[in-house]
Amino acid sequence: MADFDAVWLNAKLATMTDNGSPYGAIEQGALAVKDGLIAYAGPQAELPPFDSLTTPLYDAQGQWLLPGLIDCHTHLLYAGNRANEFELRLQGASYQQIAAAGGGIASTVRATRDASEEELFKLGKDRLNALLREGVTTVEIKSGYGLDLASEQKLLEVAALLEQHHPASIIKTFLGAHALPPEFKDNADGYIEAVCQMLPTLQQLGLVDAVDIFCEGIGFSVAQSRKVFAAATALGLPVKAHAEQLSNLGGSALVAEFGGLSADHVEYLDEAGVAAMAKAGTVAVLLPGAYYFLRETQLPPLALLRQYQVPMAVASDLNPGTSPFCSLQLMLNMACTLFRLTPEEALLGVTRHAATALGLKDRGQLQAGMRADFGCYAITQPAELCYQFGVSPLKQLVIGGTIQRF
Amino acid sequence: MADFDAVWLNAKLATMTDNGSPYGAIEQGALAVKDGLIAYAGPQAELPPFDSLTTPLYDAQGQWLLPGLIDCHTHLLYAGNRANEFELRLQGASYQQIAAAGGGIASTVRATRDASEEELFKLGKDRLNALLREGVTTVEIKSGYGLDLASEQKLLEVAALLEQHHPASIIKTFLGAHALPPEFKDNADGYIEAVCQMLPTLQQLGLVDAVDIFCEGIGFSVAQSRKVFAAATALGLPVKAHAEQLSNLGGSALVAEFGGLSADHVEYLDEAGVAAMAKAGTVAVLLPGAYYFLRETQLPPLALLRQYQVPMAVASDLNPGTSPFCSLQLMLNMACTLFRLTPEEALLGVTRHAATALGLKDRGQLQAGMRADFGCYAITQPAELCYQFGVSPLKQLVIGGTIQRF
Ligand SMILES: [Zn+2]
Ligand SMILES: [Zn+2]
Repeated sequence: MADFDAVWLNAKLATMTDNGSPYGAIEQGALAVKDGLIAYAGPQAELPPFDSLTTPLYDAQGQWLLPGLIDCHTHLLYAGNRANEFELRLQGASYQQIAAAGGGIASTVRATRDASEEELFKLGKDRLNALLREGVTTVEIKSGYGLDLASEQKLLEVAALLEQHHPASIIKTFLGAHALPPEFKDNADGYIEAVCQMLPTLQQLGLVDAVDIFCEGIGFSVAQSRKVFAAATALGLPVKAHAEQLSNLGGSALVAEFGGLSADHVEYLDEAGVAAMAKAGTVAVLLPGAYYFLRETQLPPLALLRQYQVPMAVASDLNPGTSPFCSLQLMLNMACTLFRLTPEEALLGVTRHAATALGLKDRGQLQAGMRADFGCYAITQPAELCYQFGVSPLKQLVIGGTIQRF
Repeated sequence: MADFDAVWLNAKLATMTDNGSPYGAIEQGALAVKDGLIAYAGPQAELPPFDSLTTPLYDAQGQWLLPGLIDCHTHLLYAGNRANEFELRLQGASYQQIAAAGGGIASTVRATRDASEEELFKLGKDRLNALLREGVTTVEIKSGYGLDLASEQKLLEVAALLEQHHPASIIKTFLGAHALPPEFKDNADGYIEAVCQMLPTLQQLGLVDAVDIFCEGIGFSVAQSRKVFAAATALGLPVKAHAEQLSNLGGSALVAEFGGLSADHVEYLDEAGVAAMAKAGTVAVLLPGAYYFLRETQLPPLALLRQYQVPMAVASDLNPGTSPFCSLQLMLNMACTLFRLTPEEALLGVTRHAATALGLKDRGQLQAGMRADFGCYAITQPAELCYQFGVSPLKQLVIGGTIQRF
């Protein structure tokens, strides 16, 4: 007799594995959990016998189970908001006027530096809860609104606190090289030096799972990015980049050169960059919320990404400046509507490929041995999660084998 | 002493009245309720004295009160969904292939005709609850997926049932002339005749608050629309139209000619149409969800609408074919991001102007004598409701003076 902690019967499984059918679907499926892991996910007819007196049984009622969703790119911890700037711009103010009125990323940095850990924790918890209610069970959180050691440390510590006190899994990314802080005005090289010096301190505190950088004309150059990546690699930390969002600098190829996890945005990515990513196994993280909010018209090179079989992830990019959307389900719709991803591509982008983008091999698919993170949805087919929005179809959520209240 | 049922203190009021300040704002405000109506909404310093022993007092904690939101254009009652068609299209299928696979509006008509009143009631309730949780207190519901007397009656009866059993106010619109049913293939004039015959029956049952029509090349002609409007007007029913969505036929001017409530979509509306609407007091209902979902590029003539001071409303157009979004807050963002409405214009569009679009003079503003429908939001400024999305800022919702559970 198999020893399970709980069993779900009468489920349609979107395993998101590469089992030959769309979505890795198993229509007459069952799923069993043991010690926080999936012990069985497959045809109900082949479920090993178990003691049905001592094992709780759940009837999925023919509804769909999907892996817990993964939001692999967020700036979830920030204080303040930029509604004022949003309104000014719609009233016709120029970027200069908005900057003069104290807007832009500098305003978020000020508000975030001023916020206490308690305030940031509360904001982060509300945002994580909103994601959880959509079925999101793993969330990457970037620092990057501190821009000095103490403030970056504060953000990563709050992320670590959330990891302890919230059921979702949190992946902590150090994005010190997000923007130039006022202390280093006209001295980007000096700031990059400072960022490289923050890294070992933060890592020793156990606060860094990966290192990110904003590689862009209005951000940091490829040479500067290379310095940060070298420092990260020397410490054994995986790298990624905000790259090719507004222009084609070659940041994505640089990530690939370092064997990095992902290049994110990539609207202006060229074929050489795509080829380099394919070779390195680097994931392309698509961020349709920012594309929508900025009214971008340059689409990511989807045909090339498909041709070179670069895995594509989809994430919220939740941030107050360019993607103030705390919703991964909305991104599924935008990925399909705006980027013309198929629903299967979009859902792979928030499950299997999002896990790859975070370097996580233990989740993103319904498969024995993976974490028992999954949601039960009242939908007729997986594409419904991409197609409609508003009435939540999530009926049950399980994280690490534990049924959540939400 | 004033006689109030309840009083809210320490509130910022976005009254949405024309009081000279943006959003009709009153920063140190109070609001009092009596018999389901607003008895006072104004500066706290001028709140009349009342018996604070017998009157429940609520402390808004400096948060914002706004009028209950109004979704003035929805097709909320339908069965089935079109996720399959959505997926086929993204996989490259043509419209012909989708029609051959049984897709399009015909599939929704089939599913809706087949659905029981109980099923439709359950679907409608879930959708209304999702809107309610955003602060929506009045919802227009159109028929139009029945397309025969019995099925149209069923839809309007379910809307009437929802009106009885759901706290939101429901406005019932007869949209018999939504599409040509299979029974009248190649006989649009015959179907228009049938629609005109359904009208008195449905009205006698108390099921019709207004009459709508889809005036479009792929819908009904201006001449056919005129027949329906004449029949409605003869019965004393107000009219409105889906007009100028895909081409400029003159449906909006026709609505104006009949002194109608609103012309909706209006992407292709010309200056003559705008002028006619202005003269008639007809509201332009903007539907950014459909614009987004159909990847439309023709913007409504916003400069002209502003110049002629045509009131602009914003609605969800919730429907399975072109706007599968059960969210008015998402529409606020899309109205600003895609149509470049200011946040104040967008919020007027879901309050005061949405009330006008429904012919309702008793709501849409925080003003003595209006219905006590209002929400309390944890926001720093009204624009925040348009700017960000995901974490619900709604902290309390009052409908007809009663605090809701949601
Ligand atoms: Zn980002
Ligand atoms: Zn409509």
